[in-house]
Amino acid sequence: MATEIEAAQRQHELDAKAVDRLVFFSDAVIAIVITLMVLEVRLPALPEHATDAQVVAALIALWPKYFAVVLSFLVIGLYWTLHHRRFNFVRRVDSQLVWLNLIFLLTMACVPFATALVAEHPDLVGTVVYAATLAILSITAALVWWAVGRRPEIRADPAARREMRIAVVMGLLSAAFFSVSIAVAFVSTLLAKGLWLLFFLANRVAGRLSFGRPAK
Amino acid sequence: MATEIEAAQRQHELDAKAVDRLVFFSDAVIAIVITLMVLEVRLPALPEHATDAQVVAALIALWPKYFAVVLSFLVIGLYWTLHHRRFNFVRRVDSQLVWLNLIFLLTMACVPFATALVAEHPDLVGTVVYAATLAILSITAALVWWAVGRRPEIRADPAARREMRIAVVMGLLSAAFFSVSIAVAFVSTLLAKGLWLLFFLANRVAGRLSFGRPAK
Amino acid sequence: MATEIEAAQRQHELDAKAVDRLVFFSDAVIAIVITLMVLEVRLPALPEHATDAQVVAALIALWPKYFAVVLSFLVIGLYWTLHHRRFNFVRRVDSQLVWLNLIFLLTMACVPFATALVAEHPDLVGTVVYAATLAILSITAALVWWAVGRRPEIRADPAARREMRIAVVMGLLSAAFFSVSIAVAFVSTLLAKGLWLLFFLANRVAGRLSFGRPAK
Amino acid sequence: MATEIEAAQRQHELDAKAVDRLVFFSDAVIAIVITLMVLEVRLPALPEHATDAQVVAALIALWPKYFAVVLSFLVIGLYWTLHHRRFNFVRRVDSQLVWLNLIFLLTMACVPFATALVAEHPDLVGTVVYAATLAILSITAALVWWAVGRRPEIRADPAARREMRIAVVMGLLSAAFFSVSIAVAFVSTLLAKGLWLLFFLANRVAGRLSFGRPAK
Repeated sequence: MATEIEAAQRQHELDAKAVDRLVFFSDAVIAIVITLMVLEVRLPALPEHATDAQVVAALIALWPKYFAVVLSFLVIGLYWTLHHRRFNFVRRVDSQLVWLNLIFLLTMACVPFATALVAEHPDLVGTVVYAATLAILSITAALVWWAVGRRPEIRADPAARREMRIAVVMGLLSAAFFSVSIAVAFVSTLLAKGLWLLFFLANRVAGRLSFGRPAK
Repeated sequence: MATEIEAAQRQHELDAKAVDRLVFFSDAVIAIVITLMVLEVRLPALPEHATDAQVVAALIALWPKYFAVVLSFLVIGLYWTLHHRRFNFVRRVDSQLVWLNLIFLLTMACVPFATALVAEHPDLVGTVVYAATLAILSITAALVWWAVGRRPEIRADPAARREMRIAVVMGLLSAAFFSVSIAVAFVSTLLAKGLWLLFFLANRVAGRLSFGRPAK
Repeated sequence: MATEIEAAQRQHELDAKAVDRLVFFSDAVIAIVITLMVLEVRLPALPEHATDAQVVAALIALWPKYFAVVLSFLVIGLYWTLHHRRFNFVRRVDSQLVWLNLIFLLTMACVPFATALVAEHPDLVGTVVYAATLAILSITAALVWWAVGRRPEIRADPAARREMRIAVVMGLLSAAFFSVSIAVAFVSTLLAKGLWLLFFLANRVAGRLSFGRPAK
Repeated sequence: MATEIEAAQRQHELDAKAVDRLVFFSDAVIAIVITLMVLEVRLPALPEHATDAQVVAALIALWPKYFAVVLSFLVIGLYWTLHHRRFNFVRRVDSQLVWLNLIFLLTMACVPFATALVAEHPDLVGTVVYAATLAILSITAALVWWAVGRRPEIRADPAARREMRIAVVMGLLSAAFFSVSIAVAFVSTLLAKGLWLLFFLANRVAGRLSFGRPAK
């Protein structure tokens, strides 16, 4: 029986390690995505002895890029903080969770592409692709939390079920929100972009109200 | 004698740390490879005031790239999950394991090159180079698990030997599979690519059946 | 009551983990920023069979880039060491700290852009943008330490309050220093750059005097 | 007195954490350098419907790049394994060690630049710059181990002193070796490159003989 307890103990350690590694890998991917997206903002090639006025003009012309990158930085930052908080509720990982998380990361790695697109082609197509990317990101996030919530053996404690349900609902609401912004884009791309900012701000307020009580 | 026990304890801790670091380094390299491969998908340069139709056409023209990147993402994801699961069986590392692992990572870092090649030149050469890269990746993976399995002092427990033998056989089978797809490519490059998808799906099914019992 | 103690214990572990992850994520972002900045230094395209003299000339022509990159490497290295030392004083993280830290990282990810700008356009605009970036970086760092210092529940111990006050003051002084270098740049951009080197050296001397006593 | 013991315990934990973070940061930088160097190998732009023969020719024309990248991969891999093994002897870090390590990492981040240079311009200048970069890398590594070895309070145990002396001597010998290859390059750049391969192989043999006994 001692052996059984030892085996259970060892299994528990392996489980905890597997969760930590999944979180570590996700963090590494997100850190690379968020940082390279910012590093991709480059000054357009200028003549070697460009005047100060030319350089200033080139810097100012980049403003749609600044806006798009800062917005994406905030959105990715938001999804990262949520990812962290919610993985506190995960006790072990199974194959399904690993793969849904990989698909979530794949979608996140597409955000810089959509960001560059909307910055360079701010008309309908860029706006729709960006909103669609964030809608898909929200759905893949919802799938991750659904996979955690539906199986008692990979959840950390009873409270986790409720928390995961909230996470799924919030993911689907976010997807709905970005889908609406696609419809709005057909009327006004500017209004659609305003909605995205609103999305971030609303989440920050909601996050602030509930943060700091991760596994009561 | 107390000192001997202490020394053994300290050695054990150093061993565990060395394994953790090898896994961490591998994870970091794999995270960089998988993320940068996705980030490399860029919109081709378009005229500054491109119409929506032009942008849509450019996005659609990228589809071989999307296909290749998603396939490589899935394959790398698969090798990453296997790498993780199997390193649970490693108790310490020796020089040989470190170097075989480095060569495995070097091969993995070549996957984005092969991916870009097959996306841009989908004919025979691209197809063959991609299949050959994955065949070599499978062989280097098999070498890593062979190095773990053959020496009792670096394996975690008796069950590890059997597990590592399975890993070596699966690696060699994968290499054989990709070699066959090279031959198939001479008949039809499309069929060869279909086989790669099949490879991923078969592995997922097999993985699903055996996942979650890492160190019984 | 046993349950309460257990819950407190579990909360404590989650807190420690959350701090570790924030530090890990910050380290990953900083490692990417600092390394890619160096990797961005590339030889300009030369004719394929360039003579040795042409290659040497091209290497020498890169010197403003070497200077700017080494300076930024030292400054980022400095902020990284300070970030590490000071996070020893953080016991838990709250939403505000997470977001101020993200904004700090966003600013840091802008340093390579400013570095490339000042290397390629060393006149007034480049000099001012670089100094302004470092001034903003100093202010965001000060905000991070202000967020730690003002709330007793996220500080590790009583000494932390004093330490964080020093950190805020040093951040504001740094911002003031770089603001002064902006004014100086209008007189001489070379003198402004000399001031930046002086900034690094002064910090190194100060850091040397106080290092090694992180949580006395 | 209990408080003193507790304080010492806490200090010890902070020290261990600081060492771990320095190693983690170094690993992250090295992982980025080694991976991006491989990812930088790109197929030169070919006409969109290039024939298979054209693609094969382009792939073969890249061979100096393959050679240079694999060599650098092996050398960086070697320095990484040595860095790991030797940091087992470090008990705490001080400001000097942190900064010498940063300078070591800065030099390592220059290796891909030198690698690209020698691959594209394999004549005298490329050969000399590459050898000089590795010589400087060896010297900065020697400085790191000198900083560990000279101060008893940052070394893990008495054996560390001897080990660090060996490390310093090996670093200086490596620097001498690469300096000699600079002289050789003036006679034959091919011979100089052969010497680099020899360097790696000799180190592997030596490493194999002594590996696995890190903190006896």
